[in-house]
Amino acid sequence: MTDQCISRRDLIFNLFELHRLDEILELPRFAEHDPDTCEALLDAAIQLAEEEYLPHAAELDADEPEFDGKEVRIIPQVKKAVDAFLEGGFLRAQFDEDVGGLQLPTLFAQAMSSLFPAANVSTSNYTFLTTAAANLLKAHASDDQQQRYMAPMLDGRFFGTMCLSEPHAGSSLADIKTRAKPLDDGRYRITGNKMWISGGDHELSENIVHMVLAKIDGAPAGVKGISLFIVPKKRVDADGTVGERNGVELVGLNHKMGHRGTTNCALAFGDNGECIGELVGEPHKGLQYMFHMMNEARIGVGMAAVGLGYAGYLYSLDYARQRPQGRPLTNKDPSSAPVPIIEHPDVRRMLLAQKSYVEGGLALGLYCARLVDEQNAGESEATRREATKLLDLLTPIVKSWPSEFCLEANKLAIQCLGGYGYTREYPVERLYRDNRLNHIHEGTYGIQGLDLLGRKVIGDGGRTLAMLAERIHDTTRAVPDNLREYADAVDAALQRAVDVSKTLGRIAEDGRPNVALSNATVFLDMLGHTVVAWLWLKQAVIATETLASDTGEAAFYQGKLNACRYFFGYELPKTGPMAELLEKADPVLTEIDTETF
Amino acid sequence: MTDQCISRRDLIFNLFELHRLDEILELPRFAEHDPDTCEALLDAAIQLAEEEYLPHAAELDADEPEFDGKEVRIIPQVKKAVDAFLEGGFLRAQFDEDVGGLQLPTLFAQAMSSLFPAANVSTSNYTFLTTAAANLLKAHASDDQQQRYMAPMLDGRFFGTMCLSEPHAGSSLADIKTRAKPLDDGRYRITGNKMWISGGDHELSENIVHMVLAKIDGAPAGVKGISLFIVPKKRVDADGTVGERNGVELVGLNHKMGHRGTTNCALAFGDNGECIGELVGEPHKGLQYMFHMMNEARIGVGMAAVGLGYAGYLYSLDYARQRPQGRPLTNKDPSSAPVPIIEHPDVRRMLLAQKSYVEGGLALGLYCARLVDEQNAGESEATRREATKLLDLLTPIVKSWPSEFCLEANKLAIQCLGGYGYTREYPVERLYRDNRLNHIHEGTYGIQGLDLLGRKVIGDGGRTLAMLAERIHDTTRAVPDNLREYADAVDAALQRAVDVSKTLGRIAEDGRPNVALSNATVFLDMLGHTVVAWLWLKQAVIATETLASDTGEAAFYQGKLNACRYFFGYELPKTGPMAELLEKADPVLTEIDTETF
Repeated sequence: MTDQCISRRDLIFNLFELHRLDEILELPRFAEHDPDTCEALLDAAIQLAEEEYLPHAAELDADEPEFDGKEVRIIPQVKKAVDAFLEGGFLRAQFDEDVGGLQLPTLFAQAMSSLFPAANVSTSNYTFLTTAAANLLKAHASDDQQQRYMAPMLDGRFFGTMCLSEPHAGSSLADIKTRAKPLDDGRYRITGNKMWISGGDHELSENIVHMVLAKIDGAPAGVKGISLFIVPKKRVDADGTVGERNGVELVGLNHKMGHRGTTNCALAFGDNGECIGELVGEPHKGLQYMFHMMNEARIGVGMAAVGLGYAGYLYSLDYARQRPQGRPLTNKDPSSAPVPIIEHPDVRRMLLAQKSYVEGGLALGLYCARLVDEQNAGESEATRREATKLLDLLTPIVKSWPSEFCLEANKLAIQCLGGYGYTREYPVERLYRDNRLNHIHEGTYGIQGLDLLGRKVIGDGGRTLAMLAERIHDTTRAVPDNLREYADAVDAALQRAVDVSKTLGRIAEDGRPNVALSNATVFLDMLGHTVVAWLWLKQAVIATETLASDTGEAAFYQGKLNACRYFFGYELPKTGPMAELLEKADPVLTEIDTETF
Repeated sequence: MTDQCISRRDLIFNLFELHRLDEILELPRFAEHDPDTCEALLDAAIQLAEEEYLPHAAELDADEPEFDGKEVRIIPQVKKAVDAFLEGGFLRAQFDEDVGGLQLPTLFAQAMSSLFPAANVSTSNYTFLTTAAANLLKAHASDDQQQRYMAPMLDGRFFGTMCLSEPHAGSSLADIKTRAKPLDDGRYRITGNKMWISGGDHELSENIVHMVLAKIDGAPAGVKGISLFIVPKKRVDADGTVGERNGVELVGLNHKMGHRGTTNCALAFGDNGECIGELVGEPHKGLQYMFHMMNEARIGVGMAAVGLGYAGYLYSLDYARQRPQGRPLTNKDPSSAPVPIIEHPDVRRMLLAQKSYVEGGLALGLYCARLVDEQNAGESEATRREATKLLDLLTPIVKSWPSEFCLEANKLAIQCLGGYGYTREYPVERLYRDNRLNHIHEGTYGIQGLDLLGRKVIGDGGRTLAMLAERIHDTTRAVPDNLREYADAVDAALQRAVDVSKTLGRIAEDGRPNVALSNATVFLDMLGHTVVAWLWLKQAVIATETLASDTGEAAFYQGKLNACRYFFGYELPKTGPMAELLEKADPVLTEIDTETF
């Protein structure tokens, strides 16, 4: 059978050949698992994604949730699918065994969970957000809170949300206005408005637990005065009994270009009835807690972008193999049979571009997922610390690179289908609409660029970038001869990124941080392309070695070499002009007058 | 008042400063018109676009046409808007006075007509297609046919369509199956199916005239056996009376990602009742006639892409001036007021990119429109011939470059609005969806690349490219000192394009046309960027000269210089890796095995 979400073979390649899940499984934390059980679980995930998520994706997109003023109506297939997901234990994949989790490696859990946005991102969002909320509680909530709120999430009874943005404050959380007033019993009265809350209301679960950023009366200004609260839709008693409605209300649903099946809500807290919240951890540390969870959530966003791109690639590939149209340029006989469009060079260009983006993105996402495992379960302190640093550095890249280039893949998938691809009768236009969100939520493209260049590279004195360079050099030093040219190209691109970051660091030190960071997004693209080129090289090394010993899967490995050749021929050279642009540090963006637009 | 579709000032700049409409108006054909009447007509077009087209664009997108099995229902504002368009004489703008036209220059007519897709592309399509059909009849139909079919179009009673594609044959018209069987009276019985017919059915006009490609029984195979037929929805008697229904039926509507307000139809000819058609011109010359009309239609597609991009740019610019969010990097005080997001360098980058794309695209589209005037009304045979050649060369670029880069502009407009931009409450997501079509219809991106590199450059022995180079050198030779660096960069990029085309020409001659043309789309992008860079340079020359004499509009001209600086700093250098890629002529796209995807 043809894969419909993500290539199973490529997932297996990533897990066991590229990212060595077998090594991770040998860590004490994962002693309960072995490669065989993982492979069986992966197959269960593929089956669930293809049988319960994919079939209603188009209907859900066309028949989006509606709010009648009382309740939110969602087509019933959504609940059926998420219930099956919960029953299958997929939400508990990464959690500790002592809270009922399966304690699987993040590397493996991310590989599985990427299948669901590929199949149907709208339906998958509900459990994605619940996982994120449970993660946050696991890390920072009290035992009592974990018992009353997190445990029911892992049981699938409660769903979770992230309530950060407000109508006037998205990227700038420093300016949130939601307030928390202490009550006598240690709890807080919450008042304010939140915006863009995915899964903010629905009837899919017994309760919804909102993770809310708010400022306690008298808190310091800015981000240092933000606290994190648990605000349930229905109150939860000391013994865990679900009681009356809390004062959090759905004001209205936002109607998006994509992700149409996920309720996206404007919520009012304390407008109508008292809204009670519980503080998580210490006051004023809410943003810090949130960021702790962000690394994983941002891998999740990047992997969703990969999944959407991958599904489009597979669809357009299948179409290109089937659809007869036109003849080779060398055949002028109009009475000859048309050939499948995959024979046309420009269609192959579009397919290879997609392949290089989505398989490159998958390798990137799972590389970062593996770092999470090294961070959480690595045997030495040094391993764990290095993984944390590398993950911090790569987080803006793993979030943004797929959001840019797997969206481009979706654009190309439409083009492969021509007029058909532009209609809602085929899935590729929906995938394109769905993927456009990923540059916006969980920190915009621009924010990720500033985070990478400003905080993670310049602010870090380039130390973690040097650490990454060491890992890249480990690969480039040891390539077989057929890949020497590519290895040299990666080394050169990396050196340019390092040089550029030093130039920009000096400009920032000279009191011109605005100029230094004005092209941070370009730096993000440049370093992203360099990292993905490295991951393509790693794949090519494995493909070369495997082909030499002939496994009978020559087409798969040759495909890896082709896509690598494409990436180094068509993509990596784009970093050249980016480096020149950054090196020049032309202050055009900072010095022009806003009147001149 | 703020412009909502395309900047009026920029249109005036293009018409009177950059493309010298005054010179065109001095040609005998346009003796009836002068700059003042043109400016008044332009204002009428702006008013019509903003008052009748723009207000219902969102509603039409949300409430798309429906077919109940008998009739097509379209929201009433569409008919009101197109009726106002017809009453205003806009459809007749370019037609000869002797058939009731206004005989305006194409340069001016294109500037006006670009406003309507910018305001509401779905509604504007109906008259756009009617203009194209009337143009085709004007050029190739008999006097009697012009009287009976074209005249009612110009009167606004009949609308037109283009029926080329069939369900199995889009890009490959050689394979169409629609048949025409001669009847005794010189007419033909038409049978077959057509697909993707925009405006293929509706109740907006008294009749619909389909321009249908079909093969007469016994015709040669391939494109040399295609003839062109007039197939009306309702039969038209010899005296022009509209009679009974002809056997052309709406099978169903296609549902698209964008352009949702334009009926897009699957039509059946002769399935149910006899379908009678009239041959246009000579048998087997249908495709040739169609191509004659294509140059202008493709300028129209490019200008629609420009319009959609421009409307998004203006909207996001206005938003960026209004929306407060965050603080400059140099201000760490969270209690200070947030600044409008236009102050942030990355937002400025996105605005400048949009500006450089949409204003560059406008200059390109109107440059080609001027060539149409030189071709049709130029005083010497040499002028007319040169214009025809240049127009042939630039047609794939004017169609494709805006389809790529003004779509990118729409993507950036969404990003400027953040979460809001992703919702259907704001127009930018609709503009993005609408613009995605332009790479597909009227010849795909890939087809345009092959047309440019294969037919217009290599097939032409580079002669027309050399002619274009002369025009470019006329500019680069004479720039003021402040622009010398840019002029050199254009010259260098142009030389690389010429060199690359020679290399590829030799490869084609050596019997490897597939390899030579396999990256034709990349060549299209490269030459497109070079041509647009030249047009930016021309604009910068005018801006420099004007600023020197201080007109009091310094912000406008400085804005031109800023966007030019952006284009040369951020965009033109991208042609470097493209040239290297093309020069290498790596046969990856032709030699890989389809099994390896």
